[in-house]
Amino acid sequence: MSYGSGGYNPYQPAGAGYNDGYSAPPGAYPPQNAQVSPEAQRWFNMVDRDRSGKINAEELQRALVNGRGEHFSDTSCKLMISMFDNDASGTIDVYEFEKLYNYINQWLQVFKTYDQDGSGHIDESELSQAFIQMGFRFSPEFIQFLVKKSDPQNRKEVSVDQFIVVCVQIQRFTEAFRQRDTQQNGVITIGFEDFLTVALGCSV
Amino acid sequence: MSYGSGGYNPYQPAGAGYNDGYSAPPGAYPPQNAQVSPEAQRWFNMVDRDRSGKINAEELQRALVNGRGEHFSDTSCKLMISMFDNDASGTIDVYEFEKLYNYINQWLQVFKTYDQDGSGHIDESELSQAFIQMGFRFSPEFIQFLVKKSDPQNRKEVSVDQFIVVCVQIQRFTEAFRQRDTQQNGVITIGFEDFLTVALGCSV
Repeated sequence: MSYGSGGYNPYQPAGAGYNDGYSAPPGAYPPQNAQVSPEAQRWFNMVDRDRSGKINAEELQRALVNGRGEHFSDTSCKLMISMFDNDASGTIDVYEFEKLYNYINQWLQVFKTYDQDGSGHIDESELSQAFIQMGFRFSPEFIQFLVKKSDPQNRKEVSVDQFIVVCVQIQRFTEAFRQRDTQQNGVITIGFEDFLTVALGCSV
Repeated sequence: MSYGSGGYNPYQPAGAGYNDGYSAPPGAYPPQNAQVSPEAQRWFNMVDRDRSGKINAEELQRALVNGRGEHFSDTSCKLMISMFDNDASGTIDVYEFEKLYNYINQWLQVFKTYDQDGSGHIDESELSQAFIQMGFRFSPEFIQFLVKKSDPQNRKEVSVDQFIVVCVQIQRFTEAFRQRDTQQNGVITIGFEDFLTVALGCSV
């Protein structure tokens, strides 16, 4: 994978037609607001292709390409929008976008750290290292399971969008588990309906 | 909702262009096989728009419309394909399709039973009745949670594709729970990694 000639850029433009239809220069639209960084504003303008002032999952997906040259998955784009879409409209505005932009950049930094061979995807060993760094000690079998779950095509590697999804899922489930693990011993006792609520509520 | 003038048809054609591009009459392609019912074969031919002999989630989605006149969700179509896609190719052949066809029809019969007002979607009360019939006793709060989870747009109703997804999820999680509920008392004790495996493994 190349992360773009200008360094590690989270928003790899998806092809030459990326900026089609724009007459205004990046940053000139919508009205500038001092609270949004120029960089986030510039990316927002490029991603918001219909210039609605809102970005939906489809627009986000069109703008994001992983290390395999594939667009980010539906799941990952919907997940990322939903995390910052406070009014459940399915879209985010420029202020919400800035938070998403920073969020993605943080994950990309983590991913880049563990993508030791710079291939644009991480293998089992690199994923295991990443989780250790995040404070998890998972068995090799569980790491294998995660890789297989993340990449159904069984390439035994995880791309950056798959990585974001699996990390968000594990964070959510871990938080739900921790709340119930009152003795902090890694084991919980849980009833059927509560189990279903956690399982369904935290799933992407 | 109208379920089509010809009765309760699971495969409502999605608009007039549905059968575009076909010169062969339904049933004439691919080579007939005695093991596939003529009805399933006919639907397969119509859904397989590119005549590849395989159906993917996009083709399925194009062919299925719920009671709101919306295409079935991405999630539901991917889920249904994945359930019968034995070689994890992302597609199903006509034999796998016949199983899916029967499967969808069974769910539609269940859905129709509980859609008492024939609206094409079911409300909390109807969903609660459906689960009771399936042998579940859920609290009103959990039913509310399910409806909200199923329909993020908060219309307080569940369409047939959302119904299929929620039922499959609950079946999967229930099976995983039951395997661990050795005393059959509705409570399990579960470790962190096993919890994550169930939560991630059964999620759609």
